Amino acid sequence: MPENQTQKIGVAVLGSTGSIGKSTLSVIERHDDLFEVVALTANRSLGPLCAQIWTHSVKTAVVGDASVLTTTDDLPKTDWKFGQKGLLEVVTDPEVDIVVNAIVGAAGLRISLATLEAGKKLALANKESLVIGGSLIQESLNNGGGELIPIDSEHSGIFQCVAGEESRVVSRIILTASGGPFRKFAKEDMEKVTLEQALKHPTWEMGPKVSIDSATLANKALEIIEAHYLFGIDYDSISAVVHPPSIVHSFVEFIDGSILAQLGFPTMELPILFALTYPKRRSDSKLRSFDPVSLPPIEFENIDEERFPIFRLGLEAGKRGGTAPSIFNASNEVAVEAFVNRQIRFTQIASIIGETVRSIEASEVKNLEDVLEADKLGRESARELVESL
Amino acid sequence: MPENQTQKIGVAVLGSTGSIGKSTLSVIERHDDLFEVVALTANRSLGPLCAQIWTHSVKTAVVGDASVLTTTDDLPKTDWKFGQKGLLEVVTDPEVDIVVNAIVGAAGLRISLATLEAGKKLALANKESLVIGGSLIQESLNNGGGELIPIDSEHSGIFQCVAGEESRVVSRIILTASGGPFRKFAKEDMEKVTLEQALKHPTWEMGPKVSIDSATLANKALEIIEAHYLFGIDYDSISAVVHPPSIVHSFVEFIDGSILAQLGFPTMELPILFALTYPKRRSDSKLRSFDPVSLPPIEFENIDEERFPIFRLGLEAGKRGGTAPSIFNASNEVAVEAFVNRQIRFTQIASIIGETVRSIEASEVKNLEDVLEADKLGRESARELVESL
Repeated sequence: MPENQTQKIGVAVLGSTGSIGKSTLSVIERHDDLFEVVALTANRSLGPLCAQIWTHSVKTAVVGDASVLTTTDDLPKTDWKFGQKGLLEVVTDPEVDIVVNAIVGAAGLRISLATLEAGKKLALANKESLVIGGSLIQESLNNGGGELIPIDSEHSGIFQCVAGEESRVVSRIILTASGGPFRKFAKEDMEKVTLEQALKHPTWEMGPKVSIDSATLANKALEIIEAHYLFGIDYDSISAVVHPPSIVHSFVEFIDGSILAQLGFPTMELPILFALTYPKRRSDSKLRSFDPVSLPPIEFENIDEERFPIFRLGLEAGKRGGTAPSIFNASNEVAVEAFVNRQIRFTQIASIIGETVRSIEASEVKNLEDVLEADKLGRESARELVESL
Repeated sequence: MPENQTQKIGVAVLGSTGSIGKSTLSVIERHDDLFEVVALTANRSLGPLCAQIWTHSVKTAVVGDASVLTTTDDLPKTDWKFGQKGLLEVVTDPEVDIVVNAIVGAAGLRISLATLEAGKKLALANKESLVIGGSLIQESLNNGGGELIPIDSEHSGIFQCVAGEESRVVSRIILTASGGPFRKFAKEDMEKVTLEQALKHPTWEMGPKVSIDSATLANKALEIIEAHYLFGIDYDSISAVVHPPSIVHSFVEFIDGSILAQLGFPTMELPILFALTYPKRRSDSKLRSFDPVSLPPIEFENIDEERFPIFRLGLEAGKRGGTAPSIFNASNEVAVEAFVNRQIRFTQIASIIGETVRSIEASEVKNLEDVLEADKLGRESARELVESL
């Protein structure tokens, strides 16, 4: 180990056994002269988590609850912590400088807020933090201390384009969407979509929840809501276009008519490395040199809201504001889970979300409890709908 | 006139009757609450210059020499100055905050240096300042005081992409080239190219010198040399690709593999407005809203150095360094002028440049005189070659 090990930047990877978590660890492995993994957390995937603990000899590990540990006798030596209390202890640990929040779902919000309140750098992959708690996150950032760098490729791209510019000179943001596996499907064929088809994303390798969200374009609606809070831009000035090769990640238009775009090969390791090293950049041995001549023709299409009704539902929820994005997000999580468990058909995801957002009235968000309550209501209502089918 | 007229930013437009000069004045007209034209200069185009003086009621005007004024009795009231002495008085005038240097040719270098030495903002359209005097300009910038913002669309694009980044994190720069009117011509057809064909640029409206340089791709070699000095990047890390619609102006690749690109509709008014307002941006009423879906497919090709030998000659001169770019540039200016005067054929431009750069040995640049001497030698030698044909 290098001598200056104590000088290394301490990283906590929350949700380390998921797709973003694994990519983060492989980035850190290539840059282990600079970064050190201090803590790893997983909800229930004990086996993979133990392997990671052995590899990175981390100080602290968190699992969902104590019962997870009873499944094996052969535990690596580390300080085991449990549940939300354990996660909060990790993000406030003085040895942790950067929190990579790759927790899936609404549970990530409380941890994001705690990270920012502790004055840490939050490398945020948990979409829900901004989608359901955007106004609370903004408040935390305004209160100072912490800093937020997005780990979505689209938002990382926007972040890079607007770096060094005043926010009021940004006139428009355009995200790209791969269009998912059903980009060319006729509306009537969407009825027959199988789970296997939906999980097969054309360009990105991702976990099941994100893959389904990409197939329904729920993902893109969630990202527009994220961008709204992250960059303080009105919904009228944020849009998304379909761009199957996922080479251009986003465009930023400035008030003088100039446009910056961020491009890159589809790998999450780039936005992860960027978030970890920001405001610096670091040379990466896995870098694939960019050659515009070898690219496929770069083209863009509009999103067909008829075939992808969840995109429209998500945007409407974003524009309604308050707890509406929480209700949308909660019902989407429940419906996607039901689809992954083969309880409902692909097109029923949209019906369940639609019925849920129509049945629950959105209200103002004053604190975390308002958000979590809306999340709970949305989930309950969506679950009832799933069971009634 | 608004009350705060004395607070306006004073702009001197050098070369105001040319294409960039006229665009600059139309940008300033739309933003006349912020900018005021203090001085206009033209070499010999007295009529258009007088019209501009009347429109903008400028304090000072410069023409090539006193004889230019004898051609008319009807002169607008302004402080008339002459030649290089007049230009130097303009750029050191305390009322001038920004100098837009749109002088054509090697004569622009001395003025650029004087502008930077006077601590002014130099909005640079005169390519030669950097091509032939790059090391001197770098020295002036390092000595502090002045600042340089490029007005080329490609360099403005790069400048925007690297804003807020450290220069050592830039790993590669790629400029785009429209490819000019002969992009699809066979090598043998290049022999028969007419002046009218060469002047007809597919996307940009420009003066004759720049149009011919675009047709031969001399332009792109000059821009690579400019970029080398402007951004401190090795020639091995700068390249150019053909992109006919001129929508993407340039790419910057960073050491972590991220790529930023700047895009815009082909109008010089955007880089001019950017240069005038930098580090701020300003909303422009002429803004055309950007819609990726309406774009033609974005594609890139390699430059064919066989068909465009001047591109290769220019790059070689850049890599050789010292006075080599001056000799290249001087011979190109002479050869293009001869082609525009119908003295030589299109393909002879390359032969004259090739013979000139082979016949004169390049030397180190220690001061302005070295550059101007090389420029003179290059011109003389190229002229002799033109006359011998």
